[in-house]
Amino acid sequence: MRTIVLSGFMATGKSTVGPLLAARLGVPFVDTDEVIAREAQRSVPDIWRSDGETAFRAREADVVARLLGEPDARVIAFGGGAVTNRTTRRLALDRALVVTLTAEPETIVSRVADPKGRPNLAAPDPIQRARDLLEQRADAYAECHLTLSTDATDPDAIVDAIVALADRDPIVVPLGARSYTIDVCLDAPTRLTDAIARCAPSSVVLVTDANVQRARGAVVEAALGPLALDGTRVTLAAGERHKTLAAVSTIWDAALGVGVDRDALVVAVGGGVVGDLAGFAASALLRGVRVVQVPTTLLAMVDASVGGKTGFDHATGKNLVGAFHQPSGVVADLAHLATLSARERAAGLAEVVKIAFTHDADLLARLERDATAIRAGDPVALMPIVRAAIEAKVRVVRDDERESGERALLNLGHTIGHALEAHGGFTRYLHGEAVAIGTVVELRAATKLDLAPAGLAERAGALLARLGLPIAPADGELAASWSFVCADKKRSRDALRLPIVMAAGSSRLERVRIDAFRRAVLG
Amino acid sequence: MRTIVLSGFMATGKSTVGPLLAARLGVPFVDTDEVIAREAQRSVPDIWRSDGETAFRAREADVVARLLGEPDARVIAFGGGAVTNRTTRRLALDRALVVTLTAEPETIVSRVADPKGRPNLAAPDPIQRARDLLEQRADAYAECHLTLSTDATDPDAIVDAIVALADRDPIVVPLGARSYTIDVCLDAPTRLTDAIARCAPSSVVLVTDANVQRARGAVVEAALGPLALDGTRVTLAAGERHKTLAAVSTIWDAALGVGVDRDALVVAVGGGVVGDLAGFAASALLRGVRVVQVPTTLLAMVDASVGGKTGFDHATGKNLVGAFHQPSGVVADLAHLATLSARERAAGLAEVVKIAFTHDADLLARLERDATAIRAGDPVALMPIVRAAIEAKVRVVRDDERESGERALLNLGHTIGHALEAHGGFTRYLHGEAVAIGTVVELRAATKLDLAPAGLAERAGALLARLGLPIAPADGELAASWSFVCADKKRSRDALRLPIVMAAGSSRLERVRIDAFRRAVLG
Repeated sequence: MRTIVLSGFMATGKSTVGPLLAARLGVPFVDTDEVIAREAQRSVPDIWRSDGETAFRAREADVVARLLGEPDARVIAFGGGAVTNRTTRRLALDRALVVTLTAEPETIVSRVADPKGRPNLAAPDPIQRARDLLEQRADAYAECHLTLSTDATDPDAIVDAIVALADRDPIVVPLGARSYTIDVCLDAPTRLTDAIARCAPSSVVLVTDANVQRARGAVVEAALGPLALDGTRVTLAAGERHKTLAAVSTIWDAALGVGVDRDALVVAVGGGVVGDLAGFAASALLRGVRVVQVPTTLLAMVDASVGGKTGFDHATGKNLVGAFHQPSGVVADLAHLATLSARERAAGLAEVVKIAFTHDADLLARLERDATAIRAGDPVALMPIVRAAIEAKVRVVRDDERESGERALLNLGHTIGHALEAHGGFTRYLHGEAVAIGTVVELRAATKLDLAPAGLAERAGALLARLGLPIAPADGELAASWSFVCADKKRSRDALRLPIVMAAGSSRLERVRIDAFRRAVLG
Repeated sequence: MRTIVLSGFMATGKSTVGPLLAARLGVPFVDTDEVIAREAQRSVPDIWRSDGETAFRAREADVVARLLGEPDARVIAFGGGAVTNRTTRRLALDRALVVTLTAEPETIVSRVADPKGRPNLAAPDPIQRARDLLEQRADAYAECHLTLSTDATDPDAIVDAIVALADRDPIVVPLGARSYTIDVCLDAPTRLTDAIARCAPSSVVLVTDANVQRARGAVVEAALGPLALDGTRVTLAAGERHKTLAAVSTIWDAALGVGVDRDALVVAVGGGVVGDLAGFAASALLRGVRVVQVPTTLLAMVDASVGGKTGFDHATGKNLVGAFHQPSGVVADLAHLATLSARERAAGLAEVVKIAFTHDADLLARLERDATAIRAGDPVALMPIVRAAIEAKVRVVRDDERESGERALLNLGHTIGHALEAHGGFTRYLHGEAVAIGTVVELRAATKLDLAPAGLAERAGALLARLGLPIAPADGELAASWSFVCADKKRSRDALRLPIVMAAGSSRLERVRIDAFRRAVLG
C-alpha cells in the first residue's frame, strides 16, 4: 500500500484519526511536528518564536521530503501549514494518498484549549483569523485525494472512508478548488456507482453515443441502477463528424426538457467526442453543472479525461468553440476497451506515444518493450501504460490549466494531425491516426529546422508502426491540408508555438514562423 | 481625491514610488510599517520575532483601519502581507484606490540587501520562498484598481499611471484573479479607447445590435479608430426574442471566419441582451477570449455589467444556458442613455429599486427624493444613482461569484419577473418592467407568508410608479405564467430560495416550498 498523509488545518482531527488509521492498517504513525521537535530538541512553539514561521517551514519541508523518500508505508500527519509549500504538496501528491481533514472555524477554535497561545491564532478574533488562514490555504488544502469533514463525523467513520480510499487508489488531478480524482480499474462497475454517489446529484443526464450504447449500455445502466436517480438519457450519433453545436444543443434540450436543476450531474460515457460534447454542454447548462467522465476508448482515457478541455468542431476547424470545465470525477474502466476494434485501440496509443516522447522516457521504454502485448489489447500490459500516461499528463496540466505554457507541449503531432483530420472531413482518419502521422511529421520538421537532433522521427515511426498506426500521409495530402494549419487556435498572429522534443521524455516550446514551418513540412 | 494605497510584496517599489506620488499629488505619505514601529517603539523585525506574524498582522489591521477611517486623502504604503487580511483588503478597496506593485521573484530577491535577514524570506532558497508567498497571495494582490509591474518601469512612469488612475476613479470588482474595473463616466469616449488599449488585443470582435449601431455606432467607431485594430463587426437583431443560440452562433461564425486568435477581444456594445450573448460567445470562443462590456442601457449598466453572468434564452426559460465569464473591463458612459426612450430608461430603474430594497437604504432614500429628476433622465441625478447601484451590487457579488448564497438576494422580483417575460414571449414586457411587477408581487407574497413586515410592497409600488414603471400584472396573467416559475433555474427540487426583504436595505434568503409560494402569489 501507499503512504497516507493526513493534512488539514490545526484541530481538524489529524492526531486523533492518525493513530487509529495506522493501527487499522498495521503501519507506523508519524507526526511531522513531533519529528521536528525531537530532532531540534525544542518544542514547535519554541522554534516558531525563536526562528520564525519561514525557518520552521523549511525544517518541515526537509522532514517531509525525507519521510516520503523512504520506501516504508506509513500514516503521516502533516503540520497544518505544510501543504502551503508547493514542493511539499506536490511531493505528497506524487508519493502518497493525501487526505485533507476539514472543520468549520468555530469548531477549530472550540477544540483548541488556548487559542491565543497558538502562534497562528493569537489574534484578537481567533475565529476570524482561522477563517482568513483557511481562505488563504483553500486551494492548497483542496489538492488532495479525498476531503473529509470532521465537524460531525466520528473518527471510526473517517478511518473507514480512508481505508476505502486506499483500496481505490485513485490518481488526483490537483487544480486547486477544481481538483478531482481518476479511478483506473478493470471491470469494476461499482466504481462508477460510487463516483456518481459521491456527487450526490439531484438527477443524472446520461450522455453516450449509439455505438457505446449498444456495446456498454447495459453495464452502465446496471451501475446507475442502485442509485435510482431521476433524469434523462441522450444517445448521440457516433463519430467525429457529429461533434457539432447541434449535438450539444440536443443535450441542452433533453436536460432542460426534463427540468434538471443545478445539482444535476452529466455522466458522459464514450470516447473523446462524447466527453467533449457532454462536458461542454455541462459547462453551460444552467451556467454550469457537474460532469463525471467515463471514457470508453483508450484515447479518451489517456488524453481527454485529464485537463478539462471540452467543446465542438466548427466549420473552420476542430474544437474551436468550447470551455475548460473540469470533471468532478473520471472512471476509466479498461473493460470498456474490449469492445473497441483493433484500429480504434491503436488510435488511442498515439497519444500515449506522444506523451512518452515529450515527458516520460520510462514510459517510452515500456511501450517499446511491450508493444506486441499492448497492440493485442492485453489488459495486464495496458493497465500500467494507461496509468503512467495519465500520471504524466496530470503532471503537465496541474501547472498549466489554461494552456499558456507547459501544457502546449502536449500538442505534439496535433498541429499537423488536426489539419489532416479537418482536410479529411473528419472521416478519413481517426483522431489518433492523424496524431500518429502528425507526430512523425512534426518531429521530422523540427530536425529540418535545426531545433532537434536527428533520429527521433524514425524512432517514433518504428514504435507507432509496431502499434498498428499509420505514420505517413498520402502524396500531396499535407499541402492540401495546409489551410487548416493556418486556422489552428494555437496560432498567434504569424507564428506557432511548436513542441520540440530534444530527447526521449524531454521537450520544450519554440516559437516558429508559419512560413518556416511550412517549408520544413512541405519542402 | 481619494486616498491611494500602494500594496504588493516586499521590494516591489512601494517606498520608492510612495513619496514621489505623494509629492506629485500634494498629500502626505504614510508607511504602515513606520507607524507600527513608531507606536510600538520597536522595529518591525523585533515585533515579528517577539510577537509573531499573527500579532503583527493584528496591529497592522488596526493601523490601516484607523488611517482609512480618517477623512484626509493620503498615499499609504501597506506592508507586503497586509492585504492577506480580508477585512483590511475589503476596507482598502471600499475607501481608497488600491494599486498593487509587482515584480518577479528574482527581481525582489535582488533588491533585498540581506534576504535571509528578512523573516519572510529566511529560507534556504529565498527566490522559491518568494515564489511560494506570491502564489499564496496572488488572489489578494489581484484585487485592486490597478496592477503595475516595476521590473523594468521607472518610478516616474509608475507615478504617471497612478495619477491617471486617480482621474479615472474606477469601481473595482474584486474577484481574485478575475478582478476587473468599471468606469462610470459621461460622454467620455476615450474611456473606451483606453479600456481596449489596456487589454492589448490582437484583434477586436465588436458586437452590437441594429438599434445601438444606428444610435451610437459612430461614437463607438470613433473610440476604436485610434487603435487601428483588425477584427470584425457583428450587428445582431435587437430585442429579447433574439437572445438565442442562433445569435451566439453568428458571433462565433464571424469571429472564426476572420481567424481571430486567443488574444482577440470581444467588445460588447449594447443592452443586457447584447452583453449576455457576446459575453457567452467570448467565454467559449477558442475556449475563452476576453470581453469588454460597454452597456448602453441603464439596466445593463447597473445590473448586467457586474457579476459576469452571460448566456441565452432557451425554449424552456430565460438564461438557461450560459457561463460565468467576468469581463476584462466595463465602460458605462451615461451619454449612451440619451438615445433610450423614456420607457426603456424606466425599465432600467427597476433593478436599481430592487438592489436598494435588498441592500442599500441610503440609495432607496435618494431614489425617493430625486424620483422626478431621475425619471426625466437628468444625468446629474442619474450619475450617483448608477454608481451607488453598481457599488452595492459589487459588495454582493464579490463574496459570492457563483451565486451560491448572498448573490441570490439580487433575484428579488426575478422569479415572477422571468415567468411574466417568458409567458409574454419576451415581447410583452421589457425585462425591467417584468422585474418591477415581480418585485411588488414577491414583496407582497413574503408578507402573506408571514416572512416579512407589511408595507414594503406598497412602498416599492409607489416608488416604481413614480419612476414610470408598471406595478401590477393583468388579470389572470400570474396564473397563466406559473409553469415558467417551475422551470426557473433557481429552483432546487420542490422549493425556491426566495429573497425576503425585512426592512429597507436589509434582506435574507428563505427556502419556500413552491406550493406555498404559489398560494401566496395566486391565492
